[in-house]
Amino acid sequence: MTPSKNRRIVLAARPKGEPEESDFRLEEVEIPSPGEGQVLLRNLYLSLDPYMRGRMNAGPSYAAPVEVNGVMEGGTVSEVVESKSPLLSPGNVVLSYAGWQEWAVAPADTVRKLDPAAAPVSTALGVLGMPGMTAYTGLLNIGKPKEGETVVVAAAAGAVGSAVGQIARIKGCRAVGIAGGAGKCAYVRNELGFDACVDHRGAAFAEELQAACPNGVDVYFENVGGAVLKAVAPLLNNFARVPVCGLIAHYNATALPEGPDWTPVLMRLALTRRLTIRGFLVFDFEAQRGEFYRDMSAWFREGRIKHREDVVDGIENAVSAFQGLLLGRNFGKLLVRLGR
Amino acid sequence: MTPSKNRRIVLAARPKGEPEESDFRLEEVEIPSPGEGQVLLRNLYLSLDPYMRGRMNAGPSYAAPVEVNGVMEGGTVSEVVESKSPLLSPGNVVLSYAGWQEWAVAPADTVRKLDPAAAPVSTALGVLGMPGMTAYTGLLNIGKPKEGETVVVAAAAGAVGSAVGQIARIKGCRAVGIAGGAGKCAYVRNELGFDACVDHRGAAFAEELQAACPNGVDVYFENVGGAVLKAVAPLLNNFARVPVCGLIAHYNATALPEGPDWTPVLMRLALTRRLTIRGFLVFDFEAQRGEFYRDMSAWFREGRIKHREDVVDGIENAVSAFQGLLLGRNFGKLLVRLGR
Repeated sequence: MTPSKNRRIVLAARPKGEPEESDFRLEEVEIPSPGEGQVLLRNLYLSLDPYMRGRMNAGPSYAAPVEVNGVMEGGTVSEVVESKSPLLSPGNVVLSYAGWQEWAVAPADTVRKLDPAAAPVSTALGVLGMPGMTAYTGLLNIGKPKEGETVVVAAAAGAVGSAVGQIARIKGCRAVGIAGGAGKCAYVRNELGFDACVDHRGAAFAEELQAACPNGVDVYFENVGGAVLKAVAPLLNNFARVPVCGLIAHYNATALPEGPDWTPVLMRLALTRRLTIRGFLVFDFEAQRGEFYRDMSAWFREGRIKHREDVVDGIENAVSAFQGLLLGRNFGKLLVRLGR
Repeated sequence: MTPSKNRRIVLAARPKGEPEESDFRLEEVEIPSPGEGQVLLRNLYLSLDPYMRGRMNAGPSYAAPVEVNGVMEGGTVSEVVESKSPLLSPGNVVLSYAGWQEWAVAPADTVRKLDPAAAPVSTALGVLGMPGMTAYTGLLNIGKPKEGETVVVAAAAGAVGSAVGQIARIKGCRAVGIAGGAGKCAYVRNELGFDACVDHRGAAFAEELQAACPNGVDVYFENVGGAVLKAVAPLLNNFARVPVCGLIAHYNATALPEGPDWTPVLMRLALTRRLTIRGFLVFDFEAQRGEFYRDMSAWFREGRIKHREDVVDGIENAVSAFQGLLLGRNFGKLLVRLGR
């Protein structure tokens, strides 16, 4: 039976610190109708990603915030149910940016048609999509890994980190992951094939990390910040590169951490070891999308890049899943499956 | 009358915090004799530079520390008094690294002959030497200033900063200096031709800096760290570049500054504005020495690069001059004139 309503999650209030259930509202509204040039989409998968925490805040950043009472934004894989465009037909599956909802209308020329025979369509939100391209472009353009070097990445069981380490291996590097918990670390080593993975929750984290990097660290792909950055920094070699991709340890912060102020340590390392610390957004490398997709889909088909999805069912569970993402509770690329 | 003794300053103890007189010792020793292939040098000028504070500390850095009871290291301009090498003759003036002393012996092939007719020989320790090359290579290779951009540099009346701003102007940029005190700021604006200069000691420093950078900051050439970095950081534009050349605000520190920990602010700016923060040492760009000298000496001859020297007389005054350097008391390139 086709549902007659669209369920969606709107931002009810701007979170202070960790997002609360009350910062969101589940609404039921009419399913919209496509206008000329538009398609009606039934969303199959919604991607949940750490950057979304930033969109919940007011104030300037690289993208406009979600409005209060606005539908939460997010990437989706969707099925075309109705088309008023020659570009797409009902039954086509597309990558879209339809947000935290079950149905949406979008201009046909703003979505990208997927080939379900090429790879599971959900990968367009993960390893073959934005997180994969984030890993690929950040590591190769900024990390510039050379054969024999050591690449460290945190959140190594996550969507971006898992790809970073596996690409580093393909490029002939030693890949060292950092993850939260023995289960994730075992997965990163045994399934993803990293050379080592260290549990940042362990009491001997810094020592274990040092032992895992006997030749120091040439590339630190920064997803986390906080205590992980402080443990990696002393291990950085001369001329090491630090692509800054995310800082999930700080996304829920309502105030700066207590002192002392560690900035001079970082800056002094930057100076004496001639580090390059460079932030990026995946959009900065949009011109490399073709190259990314060619390489990454080939590696994926060849089994050289593995991935893991953490799938939650139902839009009504999106908020709790997102809360868990910020606390590291997901294990693999976090997706919400819709419209079962 | 030729002196019969060499006066030199040795490191008596590793300073804790600000260097004290008691951390050094003035010694009188015999003037050494050159061996085969060596020259006897009478030092004319000793360069005092902030990096020397780091050499007084134990522990690993990019260069070995000065040994306790060892002669303090430093760049010198020296006259050849005796030569046991076909490369040099008595009367030649050379750039050397003879340290904090009046006389020294050096292998003839480790010094560089200067042409006193081309420029005052003391400039080989300043605008046409290491500090000038530091400014040139750091600004052009890392700062990559483009016409119309805004370049900010602190310690703008100093040897490196004054060159950074003037080169930025030559490259068509808006040059904004930061200096300590109204006298230095007036000099930076009126004599060096910066577009603006802001006194970091002023109560309204951050506001004045913002007003001096109406289009934000594209390049921040970091000489200082501390409060100056914190004032500049919020003004950095997307894709701004931060060559990290020095951190003089921290060189005498015995502990980290009190909290909160500002690191997350810096890292978040690096991420969302896609900053490049990159440390360097002038030696990293040794291959560009010819290019530097060609450009900088032409600009110097044409009057497009001005410089100012702060000259102290006598090796016995080197320690107090160096103490003042770390506190910003010098006004221009600090030199000790020897052997008058």
